[in-house]
Amino acid sequence: MRSILILGAGRSASTLIQYLIDHAVEQQWRITVADKDVEHARKLTSGGADLAEGVALDALNAEARAALIAQHDLIISMLPAFMHMDVLKDCLRLKKHVITPSYVPDALWAMDAEFKNAGLVVLNEMGLDPGIDHMSAMRILDRIRAEGGHMEVFESYCGGLVAPESDNNSWGYKFSWNPRNVILAGQGGSAKYIDQGMTKYIPYNKLFQRTVLVKVPGFGAFDGYANRDSLKYRSHYGINDIPTLKRGTLRKAGFCIAWDTFVQLGCTDDSFPMELGANATWCDYLDSFLPPGAGRPTRTNLAYYLNLDPKGEVMSKLDELGLFSTEKIGTTGLSPAGTLQHLLEQKWKLGENDKDLVVMWHRFRYTLNGAQHELNASLAVTGIDQTHTAMARTVGLPIAIACKLLLNGKIGDHGVLLPLKASLYNPVLDELEQLGVVFEEREIAG
Amino acid sequence: MRSILILGAGRSASTLIQYLIDHAVEQQWRITVADKDVEHARKLTSGGADLAEGVALDALNAEARAALIAQHDLIISMLPAFMHMDVLKDCLRLKKHVITPSYVPDALWAMDAEFKNAGLVVLNEMGLDPGIDHMSAMRILDRIRAEGGHMEVFESYCGGLVAPESDNNSWGYKFSWNPRNVILAGQGGSAKYIDQGMTKYIPYNKLFQRTVLVKVPGFGAFDGYANRDSLKYRSHYGINDIPTLKRGTLRKAGFCIAWDTFVQLGCTDDSFPMELGANATWCDYLDSFLPPGAGRPTRTNLAYYLNLDPKGEVMSKLDELGLFSTEKIGTTGLSPAGTLQHLLEQKWKLGENDKDLVVMWHRFRYTLNGAQHELNASLAVTGIDQTHTAMARTVGLPIAIACKLLLNGKIGDHGVLLPLKASLYNPVLDELEQLGVVFEEREIAG
Repeated sequence: MRSILILGAGRSASTLIQYLIDHAVEQQWRITVADKDVEHARKLTSGGADLAEGVALDALNAEARAALIAQHDLIISMLPAFMHMDVLKDCLRLKKHVITPSYVPDALWAMDAEFKNAGLVVLNEMGLDPGIDHMSAMRILDRIRAEGGHMEVFESYCGGLVAPESDNNSWGYKFSWNPRNVILAGQGGSAKYIDQGMTKYIPYNKLFQRTVLVKVPGFGAFDGYANRDSLKYRSHYGINDIPTLKRGTLRKAGFCIAWDTFVQLGCTDDSFPMELGANATWCDYLDSFLPPGAGRPTRTNLAYYLNLDPKGEVMSKLDELGLFSTEKIGTTGLSPAGTLQHLLEQKWKLGENDKDLVVMWHRFRYTLNGAQHELNASLAVTGIDQTHTAMARTVGLPIAIACKLLLNGKIGDHGVLLPLKASLYNPVLDELEQLGVVFEEREIAG
Repeated sequence: MRSILILGAGRSASTLIQYLIDHAVEQQWRITVADKDVEHARKLTSGGADLAEGVALDALNAEARAALIAQHDLIISMLPAFMHMDVLKDCLRLKKHVITPSYVPDALWAMDAEFKNAGLVVLNEMGLDPGIDHMSAMRILDRIRAEGGHMEVFESYCGGLVAPESDNNSWGYKFSWNPRNVILAGQGGSAKYIDQGMTKYIPYNKLFQRTVLVKVPGFGAFDGYANRDSLKYRSHYGINDIPTLKRGTLRKAGFCIAWDTFVQLGCTDDSFPMELGANATWCDYLDSFLPPGAGRPTRTNLAYYLNLDPKGEVMSKLDELGLFSTEKIGTTGLSPAGTLQHLLEQKWKLGENDKDLVVMWHRFRYTLNGAQHELNASLAVTGIDQTHTAMARTVGLPIAIACKLLLNGKIGDHGVLLPLKASLYNPVLDELEQLGVVFEEREIAG
């Protein structure tokens, strides 16, 4: 028997756990799911008979965390980023392999030699984005290079959205993952990419204005806004001299320019508690970001301030959220971002019968034998239900498959790894295809 | 003999040191100026005969710093904010009084009882802004309240600028203090103030657009942009119920809307090193913040992107800085903000014969016996020369005077203090008047 510990059973853990349970007998796995909400952990493991168990864990309790880690062979950390390094230090000390969907912090790269020397694997960025994006891009990049192609352009966009059949608000958005991350997206320094050999920087206040239109066959048009730092992918992907490289996030077309209203107003600032009284309304919330309105109604004042057409689509999206209403906010002491999240969690809740949608889109341009080529690859995954959302499937399945590979000795390398090598991405992508996570490629006429 | 230690002999320390030397015999003071640049410290103390001495100190060297502090009765810390708490902990442990122009961090308020119990004074915010702003405002607020007036409005603006006779660039600005602080001004969360009972928040991307015009008699028109957090001054000044309270910074009229160009472009981001080659020009610098220009020249592309009149004042201010030139930047690896600072330090240098200007302006509106009153108080100080700038005088003299009061036992209180009480502000403001730092008050017809 090999034992697997899953730390944190959030929204994205359901399909991962289901896969592990489904393969537990065949693979001789014993599975422990540790969460602060033990009932939730027990519910997720209920189908696993005596091979899966839900246990209570406050992951901030270092002693309890280490004790649990010590009892397992492989640790899958689904915990928030701020707890990531603590878990990894435990795993190094207790000599455990780790798989996680999280980005690699610089401090972890610095521990690479220690993990290598201990013969341990720390496989990171193994979910959807980062994760499937790496693997699907590398498979195509490696193929183009093997054919002798020379890369000119690589662009990659991904978004967690709502399925067309469940899309009944004008923003085209519902939350299929952590709402806080959606509200704060793009903060913390300018986005960086390369366009025709020129490094480009986009500050937060322009991020949702400088979008590109991405059309995904069968799923319509999306806004793509630039992700934090595309530059580091040059070395990761071995495309150091590529003239154009951009990674971004997808929202339904029209979302970004409306979201920019919140950015311009300051509604996404998470750095201070607002001073709004217990009876404050959503109009009061907006008023606090507006210059004194000289008696104009809030709606008029806002449209004037941001130069918005009062009858246009952006204003109608704000109308739909009830932001100009005298409805009470019903919570106090939160930041502007926290207060906005409180509203959007009500308005953009994924309903009981709603399905989510994950869309990923890559664009490759390259020269081969003197000719220009363009290849697009797109992935669209629709959720099965509220538990097995497209987000949970696309984050969880690559981790689960990697878990199988790792415990069966199929990952040759040691140390701090990303899923960039054919020996890893081929078996993972192949099995994902069998599970319905399939990229469609199309050649675009040069 | 009483001994005084000045930690850090930066731009604002010259007049402070001169005052201490001038009063050393009369007051029986022994003065030590410690700086990492010992030659500079020695130059500043050269007029002090055997009562003043310049010594070398790396203030980050905790042992050397504590050894020096231990030998003195009163410590004046002019060090950057990030070293502030370390110095204060030394002073508590070694039982020394402290005076500083710095803001009080929350961690220092928490040490108030310890300083009180030790019978020590930590007098903070004792320079210009914060410093003279507190004292001049409190003197008038206390007077209005003593008369029975009820405060309706308090606004206060201050700026370190260039004197009209030395103002020969279109921005109306030269650096009389730390350039880095000028470049980064307004970052780190929304500005907060109160307008007619409503709390208002301004995000960084709107800060330099939402200015007010401030006219100071004899000195012309200024842009006032809101300072970080005006709200905390309600409790400091005892005006908890005031409907309108706003503090801000002054720049010459027209500066702010041009500066906003840098904010909108992302030129003031200090969070990452730019990737500009060794031969990059200022045009390349701007290009990196602009969307691909489809062959348009940088200047046209920028004007189009930010909706600026190509023949307008903002563009002509950018022209003056040489930003559209093919001149080489001459430095690499700096952040956008650092690169901009590199340019502006050349363009906005206070010349050998230039004089700087400090302007402060308060506006008070109140009701008294049923009638509306408005009182404006303004201060304008012109620098004497490059050493005794208006900035050095207005930051240094209040500290020096407070030093005299403290060592002569004239500050009754102990603990962590701001200069808010009449027993402190009266003698300081009275002596400042004798030294030429004089507020002019004028009643405005209601």
